[in-house]
Amino acid sequence: MSATRPPTPVNGAELLRDTLLDCGISVCFANPGTSEMHFVAALDHEPRMRCVLGLQENVVTGAADGYGRMSGHPAATLLHLGPGLANGLANLHNARRARTPIVNVVGDHASTHLALDAPLTTDIESLARPMSDAVRRVTDPDDVQAATLEVYRAARDRPGVATLILPADASWGGLSEQHCRAPPAAPCTAAASAQVDAVAQAIARHARSGARIGLLLGGKALRRPALPVAGRIAEALGARLLCEPLSGRLERGAGTVAVEKIPYPIVKAIECLATLDVLVLVGCKAPVGFFAYPGLPGKLCGDSCEILTLSAAADDAAIALAHLQNGLGIRPGPVRCIAFAPPAAPVDGATLTPQDVCQRIAAGLPEGAILCDESLTSMAVLYAKTRAAAAHDYLQNTGGAIGIGPPLAIGAALACPDRKVVNVQADGSAMYTIQALWTQARERLNILTIILSNRSYAILHHEMRGVGIDSPGENSRRMLDLVDPALDFAQIARGLGVEAVSARTPREFAAAYARGLAASAPFLIDAVLCT
Amino acid sequence: MSATRPPTPVNGAELLRDTLLDCGISVCFANPGTSEMHFVAALDHEPRMRCVLGLQENVVTGAADGYGRMSGHPAATLLHLGPGLANGLANLHNARRARTPIVNVVGDHASTHLALDAPLTTDIESLARPMSDAVRRVTDPDDVQAATLEVYRAARDRPGVATLILPADASWGGLSEQHCRAPPAAPCTAAASAQVDAVAQAIARHARSGARIGLLLGGKALRRPALPVAGRIAEALGARLLCEPLSGRLERGAGTVAVEKIPYPIVKAIECLATLDVLVLVGCKAPVGFFAYPGLPGKLCGDSCEILTLSAAADDAAIALAHLQNGLGIRPGPVRCIAFAPPAAPVDGATLTPQDVCQRIAAGLPEGAILCDESLTSMAVLYAKTRAAAAHDYLQNTGGAIGIGPPLAIGAALACPDRKVVNVQADGSAMYTIQALWTQARERLNILTIILSNRSYAILHHEMRGVGIDSPGENSRRMLDLVDPALDFAQIARGLGVEAVSARTPREFAAAYARGLAASAPFLIDAVLCT
Repeated sequence: MSATRPPTPVNGAELLRDTLLDCGISVCFANPGTSEMHFVAALDHEPRMRCVLGLQENVVTGAADGYGRMSGHPAATLLHLGPGLANGLANLHNARRARTPIVNVVGDHASTHLALDAPLTTDIESLARPMSDAVRRVTDPDDVQAATLEVYRAARDRPGVATLILPADASWGGLSEQHCRAPPAAPCTAAASAQVDAVAQAIARHARSGARIGLLLGGKALRRPALPVAGRIAEALGARLLCEPLSGRLERGAGTVAVEKIPYPIVKAIECLATLDVLVLVGCKAPVGFFAYPGLPGKLCGDSCEILTLSAAADDAAIALAHLQNGLGIRPGPVRCIAFAPPAAPVDGATLTPQDVCQRIAAGLPEGAILCDESLTSMAVLYAKTRAAAAHDYLQNTGGAIGIGPPLAIGAALACPDRKVVNVQADGSAMYTIQALWTQARERLNILTIILSNRSYAILHHEMRGVGIDSPGENSRRMLDLVDPALDFAQIARGLGVEAVSARTPREFAAAYARGLAASAPFLIDAVLCT
Repeated sequence: MSATRPPTPVNGAELLRDTLLDCGISVCFANPGTSEMHFVAALDHEPRMRCVLGLQENVVTGAADGYGRMSGHPAATLLHLGPGLANGLANLHNARRARTPIVNVVGDHASTHLALDAPLTTDIESLARPMSDAVRRVTDPDDVQAATLEVYRAARDRPGVATLILPADASWGGLSEQHCRAPPAAPCTAAASAQVDAVAQAIARHARSGARIGLLLGGKALRRPALPVAGRIAEALGARLLCEPLSGRLERGAGTVAVEKIPYPIVKAIECLATLDVLVLVGCKAPVGFFAYPGLPGKLCGDSCEILTLSAAADDAAIALAHLQNGLGIRPGPVRCIAFAPPAAPVDGATLTPQDVCQRIAAGLPEGAILCDESLTSMAVLYAKTRAAAAHDYLQNTGGAIGIGPPLAIGAALACPDRKVVNVQADGSAMYTIQALWTQARERLNILTIILSNRSYAILHHEMRGVGIDSPGENSRRMLDLVDPALDFAQIARGLGVEAVSARTPREFAAAYARGLAASAPFLIDAVLCT
């Protein structure tokens, strides 16, 4: 078929394929169904598009998130109708909160079929909107190009999740117009506004008066080229450099600028910010509590703290920070960075603690690794131990929908095939998207998964104590514990085609970790913790 | 704590617990989070509520579907915010299409927290509506009882999925009013209307003129007491008794009235109905194609076929049919039933086919079994082979969102602990909710899962041929095949705590099937098919 494929598209499906390629989209994470068959056929003999199957759609969307975070460009997804979209919404939610660009393609019934209310009919727009920054339904085959370009630009420029709804008849229908190749124009780079100058003046005034200043960094402010500039400004001002409890992508380890993370627990978070007189927002919003708690405020900063917005999430943080540096009269120059000082390897013992595991991970982390952190209960320990490890990118669950780690690792590994991906993963959350391991095996990805098996939703046990239940009874244990039976992650992983071992002591974990780091194929360690 | 628990609820969470119990709801399928902790605490020492954890929400909702189909009463769910709901939407979609009663409880942030747009904030109503027959947000603690009763009645009387959104502050907030116990009144039974008489007259007229009549049965018309009445009417009229390709619950096997199923493939479906002059709808809508195909009609009946609606899905089919019988002057009496004639056991050979497996399943199916069928590609074979097996209930995927089988089996087994549940399960669909096996193990449910491992989304390969691709290329194979690596379901099952074996010949399958039937705990057979 490839020899006879016409150079111009003949139907909407082929036009979609060509328009995505024109946009530079070369990876499609997919789980298609009957209504998407014409698009599958259009992709069939197209080697420029890498099609990656996920065995459940939350794997598909989570992988697109990881790819977008690390490549900076959107991948496409391919989802089957409302239910297929629904299955992938949780990780689209996380992607949207991380401001990851994704072109989210969702098939629908043929337009003529919708009125019949066939069994798979749903209101796709209603499902898509809460987790999308833009939603666009294709009206007919000739509309495919315009709709796709619109969605692509929305995904790239916000950046965020943009959903394209593709009815089957817009896919299979013939084209009545000629569609020239039309790669989208480059985005306008956000120029520094008068706002930056006003913020610079306000900061200068506060600095003179001895105010305690914090810079809260989000989005691209947490990596080069923005982060060193932020560091230089903070040094010059004597200000604190902060980030939110959960960040989409953060450059960390030796050679990077140290950023202080606001703790996740609400009381500690409030304490952390209580001493600030001024908080400058760079690429993020004013910090709020992850959850509400009776009697505690939702906003983490008190009313006495002045909030200044330097740039919003969609702005170019590096440009804004450079203007601020200039406006404050700070000369560009070297900035203090973290020196390489990984923790010592843990001492061997009869049982394995989260501290042991995180210390060993940090001690041996390869230079340039991508650390996908969904460790949840052990997050604070992992974060502390890896502070002065080898330089790495740190990816987290930004939206709080659990089950992001294993798919995120897929996307990161595909975007950066020369780097080691280490997914440190809570057991309860791992079970949400355990199917991802199969895709890791099929694509032969360089991913080491470390399951922190504490055999419970431990973070919720903590929350139970928060509501005054110190000794949980039958029903809460049945809802919060992952025992009876215990999950054997090594066995599950092998069933999904991934080599795996269990580790129950620091020595066993060290051996497993060395083996996992040496492997170039996916490898899983079930770190069975003493809790 | 149980000794000191006050007899009257003190907050919204306790009032919700008590109202659900007043409604006769005694099972809660759950995967809670921080915002639901007060409700978890309220349930903690309440032995009248059985709390069943699913490791992903599509397990939770699919189990509630199975429970509702077999018990006739709604279970409650407990889901965590928008993402938790999103994860469970696909099986709520199936439940809604099966008209299963479910009280779907979704936690939300405290009302005061919503405006802050914290990371887990989403538009829950927008997500819930497409898969719910009713959606109700609790406004404050004192509103909990009224809202819950409203949702319960909607779930019971439509029947269908009714979603209750519970903000955390409505859960933890104290009550300012006294709330008397108020069990809901019984539903009004739909009386036969003048419509039934008009339909009776029309049918009588058609019968006199020799018209070819079909009765299409849905919902409760597919089981006693309605089904024998429908059979009696069909016999008297010389009419065909039909059901849709996918039914929520169907009484089948020896001693039941034979019902002819409309085939799933669109061309065969149209042929099946082409010879009818009149189609009488009993508890269902006029049949439409599951998907649209270029050049084929969406409505399965031609314009020359007259459609008569005897009763809608929400009506009492048994009452409507009894009135129709009376209106047609047909005397109640015995009806022809299927005689027990299971197929012979398959002959042994070197490889295993879907025919072998389905024949063996039918040959040995225990009396009173509940057959959860998500065999998809092998559906027609399984249906044909089990026609004259021992009497059983037959449950299918009504909405087309794959991944229903293993959770459906959980709910059916909990509703009917004395019956054997046999889940015949396509491999690709099994992977959508494979986490369900853990819940089956934990609850020690009497479920035998049989995976039909053909190592592909075979039904989609068929659809590819339908769009003219006879020899799929690299990209479609990568999206439709489940090989490289092959899934080892026996190993995955053991990792999840379920005993399991693989079978590759009819003899091996026979031994495994006997073992699985004899077990009272969950058991899985990976039937590796020759394809």
